[in-house]
Amino acid sequence: MKPLILDGTVVANHVKESLKSRIEDLKNQDITPCLATVLVGDDSSSETYVRMKGNACQAIGMESRRIHLSEETTTEELLKVIQDLNNDDDVHGILLQHPVPHQIDERAAFEAISIEKDVDGVTSLGFGQTAFGFGSYPSCTPAAILKIIDYYEIDVEGKHAVVVGRSPILGKPVSMMLLNRNATVTTCHSYTENLQDILSNADIIVAAVGKPNFIKGDWVKEGAVILDAGYNKGNIGDVEYDSCFEKASAITPVPGGVGPVTISMLLKQTVDSAEKRI
Amino acid sequence: MKPLILDGTVVANHVKESLKSRIEDLKNQDITPCLATVLVGDDSSSETYVRMKGNACQAIGMESRRIHLSEETTTEELLKVIQDLNNDDDVHGILLQHPVPHQIDERAAFEAISIEKDVDGVTSLGFGQTAFGFGSYPSCTPAAILKIIDYYEIDVEGKHAVVVGRSPILGKPVSMMLLNRNATVTTCHSYTENLQDILSNADIIVAAVGKPNFIKGDWVKEGAVILDAGYNKGNIGDVEYDSCFEKASAITPVPGGVGPVTISMLLKQTVDSAEKRI
Repeated sequence: MKPLILDGTVVANHVKESLKSRIEDLKNQDITPCLATVLVGDDSSSETYVRMKGNACQAIGMESRRIHLSEETTTEELLKVIQDLNNDDDVHGILLQHPVPHQIDERAAFEAISIEKDVDGVTSLGFGQTAFGFGSYPSCTPAAILKIIDYYEIDVEGKHAVVVGRSPILGKPVSMMLLNRNATVTTCHSYTENLQDILSNADIIVAAVGKPNFIKGDWVKEGAVILDAGYNKGNIGDVEYDSCFEKASAITPVPGGVGPVTISMLLKQTVDSAEKRI
Repeated sequence: MKPLILDGTVVANHVKESLKSRIEDLKNQDITPCLATVLVGDDSSSETYVRMKGNACQAIGMESRRIHLSEETTTEELLKVIQDLNNDDDVHGILLQHPVPHQIDERAAFEAISIEKDVDGVTSLGFGQTAFGFGSYPSCTPAAILKIIDYYEIDVEGKHAVVVGRSPILGKPVSMMLLNRNATVTTCHSYTENLQDILSNADIIVAAVGKPNFIKGDWVKEGAVILDAGYNKGNIGDVEYDSCFEKASAITPVPGGVGPVTISMLLKQTVDSAEKRI
């Protein structure tokens, strides 16, 4: 049987549709939800990502304030920019594009974002709140994965979810969020021995490893739900799509899977933040 | 072959021994490390725990300030007490004994503890920092488990660790700490299906489920390392000791395992905090 294709474009449109009247209502109260994006340096993929996010804001009637700093920016200069955005009442969300040039203390920069404006869910406080089940703004890609799960009514409770990857914005938070939904969660990474054995027992697989076509159809159980959060050059996911398609009961494509939903969650969380200003 | 007994008393004494000269040095600078314990209500086990912690402070030359509030305390009253302790320069650590009476918003009370004094590791910020690998004060029981692992030089990297339990002060943080040590980590809980299957593949088991004698020897792999963080009435762990003893390569007893090390970590983290005052 062919698997259910978890179409991220459909989910993203659903999310964005639900935002329109909320944005309208805010504008009637003279508030335009505004996301500030901060890009440091000249990485061309990062420029593309930031542009996509800015355009997505504008397409839906939100404001996007784009700040582009030079490759030579110091940590102190970046912290000052973030502090100014924290203090700016017209800004409701702050997104610092990862990665930043090597001379910058990226963690310090993320931590400087105030929790009220951390709509991208990058701070340790935001992560902790999410893990404890009361956070306002989970990291956007994990939030997107959960949104897809909800939209397609995928059963998570009691299921064995295997997350491949343990980054602060993806593997760790999605592990915690799935745990809070009563999944049994295994988090794997580059040191994991017998990854294939572990994957072969997974009901749900979240691929967040950053290696193109890494997870093969041979490794996964018949009927597994496969969520591919990988972004690799050339729009290739972490999952070898064709072979996994043969085994999965449901699967996200790349592109058109987790990616567009991630952006829609960023918009949603910026609108959430703007509404708290009323 | 008989398993290695992971003797918590030995580890706790080792930790406490290392604190003596540090406390001496602090006193020479007119700083006596001080832990404030806050107990709300009349739960007799809680009273015992708090007394043990206070006594442990005093035995090692630290100060313990014991605050006992009535069963009828409101959230607001408790928050005020915590705020006063946050502002008190003579207090280096604050421990709010769990559980508090039902009318109190326990999470709000925990969150009110300033990160500088959260030596018991209960705040969402402290948890997030620990999970991201840069926290000062992890939750004490997880810290104790890692200390036992280090003391007995148990190999964690690449191993499959199964944590049974997902509480904010135990299952979740110990999962993140083991993950940061490059273990593959599975977190299980009451909704987990096929727990026995999962345990049968575990190289390391952390029992944090709160059910006496819950984990049976039949369920565990020959040679597993078993760390029992359970505290149940009558000094009974979560692990059925005799049957697990037959299978394990290393095992913590109850009592005399994780418990005493937990208290020593609380003392250590209070001393750490006092040293930051210099």
